[in-house]
Amino acid sequence: MEPLYEGKAKRLYKTDDAEVLRMEYKDEATAFNAEKKAVFESKGKLNKAITLLLYKMLEDKGVKTHLHADLDEVNLLVKKVEILLVEVIVRNVAAGSFSKRVGVAEGTPFKTPIVEFSYKSDELGDPLINDDYAREMGLATEAECALLKKQALVVNEVLIDFFQKCGLRLIDFKIEFGRLSSGEIVLADEVSPDTCRLWDAETGKKLDKDRFRQDLGDVMEGYQEVLRRIEEVK
Amino acid sequence: MEPLYEGKAKRLYKTDDAEVLRMEYKDEATAFNAEKKAVFESKGKLNKAITLLLYKMLEDKGVKTHLHADLDEVNLLVKKVEILLVEVIVRNVAAGSFSKRVGVAEGTPFKTPIVEFSYKSDELGDPLINDDYAREMGLATEAECALLKKQALVVNEVLIDFFQKCGLRLIDFKIEFGRLSSGEIVLADEVSPDTCRLWDAETGKKLDKDRFRQDLGDVMEGYQEVLRRIEEVK
Repeated sequence: MEPLYEGKAKRLYKTDDAEVLRMEYKDEATAFNAEKKAVFESKGKLNKAITLLLYKMLEDKGVKTHLHADLDEVNLLVKKVEILLVEVIVRNVAAGSFSKRVGVAEGTPFKTPIVEFSYKSDELGDPLINDDYAREMGLATEAECALLKKQALVVNEVLIDFFQKCGLRLIDFKIEFGRLSSGEIVLADEVSPDTCRLWDAETGKKLDKDRFRQDLGDVMEGYQEVLRRIEEVK
Repeated sequence: MEPLYEGKAKRLYKTDDAEVLRMEYKDEATAFNAEKKAVFESKGKLNKAITLLLYKMLEDKGVKTHLHADLDEVNLLVKKVEILLVEVIVRNVAAGSFSKRVGVAEGTPFKTPIVEFSYKSDELGDPLINDDYAREMGLATEAECALLKKQALVVNEVLIDFFQKCGLRLIDFKIEFGRLSSGEIVLADEVSPDTCRLWDAETGKKLDKDRFRQDLGDVMEGYQEVLRRIEEVK
């Protein structure tokens, strides 16, 4: 069966229900806009399990997501959405592209979280944009930009609190949103160590995709540790 | 006499008055963060004359600037300010780094102007930032960011209107602001074909620094034409 859509980390397939798709989590890992590639056995199942648990937790806290039902080891059933081409990044501590862009040392905490938008475009490398760009490019209206920021900060609050109980420090994360056929905008895509920076609260050890980006080794051991801790606390 | 500060296009010198500096406009031109360099005889005097005329016009419309007095061919006397490290860019039509960043064709007009901030840092190439970055990096408070945007849009309105009378289309521009010793924030730096994109309203001919960036030739003829038209209309 041909996927409807294949991204860098997931594939989407039709189901019998026109409003529901099957989302398959792949073992492929990419970094630096796919300049660096690898396959990690079990990444798909780890990220699927982590996303499922976090999505359920977020739903319990009132955050609507595209989650429909669990299916099997690497597949979720999700509501069909039109993905907004605005990715939302929330930063609690300086790291990654932020540190590189503005020369602020990794690990510098922010007083108030930074929210930023990037234009979802592999070809252009997901460039940073602002609200005015999103509006004029027809990616999201002013009201939608405000909604995305507000929702992203709610997700941040819920995740910070939960990860703290797991002995994990949420450094930053990237989320995506999608529009249901009803027009409602909900959280879509994944929430996993591929899309969040998570550091051990005690040791500062990185337990996320930076282990792959920075060749730190034991990449899946990091993801496995995240899953173990969140399953213990949930 | 040693300059207090030397930038890519201007030098600043002390005067007898501690609150007043002499700003000398240089003939040196740079582009692409100083990767491309050249000297254009008369650039200093053209940009000084254009800035002086536009600053006076802006002051008449209620926009406060650092202008103190005219001095000679290439020198203005300006109030001493602490330059904010947030550069403000206003875009009426897609061009330059905007078009490159997000893949929107040069010449695409915007319904509402785009305002963006960049972090004034030669070392980092003046990267695009947003309000949250400015706040957390200590570059400008939330209220200051709002003020800069509001002022930039006033400058845009005044300049669009004036340039239109000169048969010039204001595509975009970059401005800087400075803090007087009183704490007041005023427009500083220059407003010239080095910092504005200006196209002939009839033919679309570029009359600004893009003639240098894009090796279009007749660079100073473009600047001279801008000065000629604004002197005629003022």
